[in-house]
Amino acid sequence: MSLPPIVGITMGDPVGIGPEIIVKSLLNKDINKICRPLVIGDQTVISQAVNKLNAKITCRVITGKIEKEEFCFNRIAIFDSQKTGLSSLSYGNPDKETSKVMAFAIKEAVRLALDRKIDAIVTAPINKEALRRAGYSYPGHTEFLGVLTRAKNSIMMLAGDSLKVVLTTTHHPLKEVSNLITSKKILTTIEAANSALKHYFGIASPRIAVAALNPHGGEEGIFGDEEKRIISPAIKEAANSGIDVKGPFPSDSLFYQAIKGNYHLVVCMYHDQGMIPIKLLGFHNAVNVTLGLPIIRTSPDHGTAYDISGKGIADPSSMLRAIELAARMAKIRYQSHNDGNAV
Amino acid sequence: MSLPPIVGITMGDPVGIGPEIIVKSLLNKDINKICRPLVIGDQTVISQAVNKLNAKITCRVITGKIEKEEFCFNRIAIFDSQKTGLSSLSYGNPDKETSKVMAFAIKEAVRLALDRKIDAIVTAPINKEALRRAGYSYPGHTEFLGVLTRAKNSIMMLAGDSLKVVLTTTHHPLKEVSNLITSKKILTTIEAANSALKHYFGIASPRIAVAALNPHGGEEGIFGDEEKRIISPAIKEAANSGIDVKGPFPSDSLFYQAIKGNYHLVVCMYHDQGMIPIKLLGFHNAVNVTLGLPIIRTSPDHGTAYDISGKGIADPSSMLRAIELAARMAKIRYQSHNDGNAV
Repeated sequence: MSLPPIVGITMGDPVGIGPEIIVKSLLNKDINKICRPLVIGDQTVISQAVNKLNAKITCRVITGKIEKEEFCFNRIAIFDSQKTGLSSLSYGNPDKETSKVMAFAIKEAVRLALDRKIDAIVTAPINKEALRRAGYSYPGHTEFLGVLTRAKNSIMMLAGDSLKVVLTTTHHPLKEVSNLITSKKILTTIEAANSALKHYFGIASPRIAVAALNPHGGEEGIFGDEEKRIISPAIKEAANSGIDVKGPFPSDSLFYQAIKGNYHLVVCMYHDQGMIPIKLLGFHNAVNVTLGLPIIRTSPDHGTAYDISGKGIADPSSMLRAIELAARMAKIRYQSHNDGNAV
Repeated sequence: MSLPPIVGITMGDPVGIGPEIIVKSLLNKDINKICRPLVIGDQTVISQAVNKLNAKITCRVITGKIEKEEFCFNRIAIFDSQKTGLSSLSYGNPDKETSKVMAFAIKEAVRLALDRKIDAIVTAPINKEALRRAGYSYPGHTEFLGVLTRAKNSIMMLAGDSLKVVLTTTHHPLKEVSNLITSKKILTTIEAANSALKHYFGIASPRIAVAALNPHGGEEGIFGDEEKRIISPAIKEAANSGIDVKGPFPSDSLFYQAIKGNYHLVVCMYHDQGMIPIKLLGFHNAVNVTLGLPIIRTSPDHGTAYDISGKGIADPSSMLRAIELAARMAKIRYQSHNDGNAV
């Protein structure tokens, strides 16, 4: 990998803030130093975002082999996934056409990544309802990508500046979490986190902590027994296999220990347990990473923001971080692979 | 209240870090400027802590009327609650005797506060098992104080530098939270928080936010319906009664909004939802406040720390904050009362 990695960026929902934050991100010179960014989606949508922002940048649809393309700053390379030509967009109002183009860009990005034509994908925000309208009923990207790549377990990681977490369960009612966590699921999550820290984040000896489910970690079973019954056995099994993993720890004090540097990552039991500290520590800086896929995938940690789309006021910080992280992960994976490590 | 308020400080578990952090706190000159601190407990226990720390401070057991006592820096005023004379302590090892003295100090403090002999109480940490051994089976201080003061609803508030939260439910298995929250309980919690912000914290127009239970606030019922069924009705009723309260908001992004200044306080549904952000923002700075009692009560937000008791290394930060806050709350309540406001 003498040239920087090629990072495919799906345009997201055409009527959301995706195209805008992509263009804003690509106005940043540093991005072109660390990766070769390739926008995957509809060229008219991207051009429209450029025009609306009066951005001093041109668009170029690539026609030949991606790896032969000359990537340069000030010229957005676009892989025109469907050539639909969505000319008039009504921002904030998805229709069947915009939704189909949105979904197809993701499918094309996955195909390119599986074929190793690109080194990683970054996905701009989509809308679940729009995805359903396009014919795909999934709660979100993570599950859709799991199916497209035929991955058995796709796991949600959030990476902030000072904290990384993975979620054992994601989008479920809180009262169901106790029934959804199993020792096997927690073990798989620990293993995926450990592998990712090594091969994507370049941490030779990852230190992992597992959060308890109940207050005070269940306090010897008085406030819940999932710690003893479900979580501890998974930790023991992971530790026996050589992973440096400890817990379960009461979750209220654990994140402070992690940001102090005692742990590289916290395995969480439910969505808000991990998301509260991540968003509190850096609201605009967290990046969503999907583990367990055969490809590298990151995304900004926010939605389509229909309410402000097309207004030019969307904050590209999280998208920028997502592109940077995807590039870094691809580079480390390449090095790790060349060092003879399995990924 | 021409003189500063009298703050009663219960010594906590004699074999925990309570006596040590009390003595360390009273070595701080500023404490004596904002309050008249009165330690309630066993004089030999406090003297022993002074000796172990080689602290340049004397102890004086008060014998006459508390309000006639001359409080001064460098001399700890002690209300010797039981005159037991616990001479030889085995730090970290509570027995029936130490446990009884510990519990009696709390009862005496409550009596003095109810009789308005003291203006507030600060409680040093106790151990639940020791409390049980003394004949009182309660999960902790909050519940014990509720019974002693015959309060119908005692509510746990955590006050940090930049964030205040109250907990609708406290020490229960996470899976039971959904069944434990009721509209009535949430309404009571909102009302108690609103009243406390006005009369104890001096905020004329409190802005309160309520956290959702489920990820993404239930996302229109897909990830849980407690928001619509239980939480929203309580918020509406509170708002109708004139309280400035909004929500339910997805809890992951809410705390960031609160610390930005959009809200004075967040009403949480469960223990870790509120404790994670509080501990992350200031591990040693959070103070526990019990609302809904007829007396002012604060406490440091940590336990007896048997493992380090008697070693002289306990951090008194949270105890200092607890005393400061109790003094400030007593002062504001006095002013509020004199302005003709009900408390």
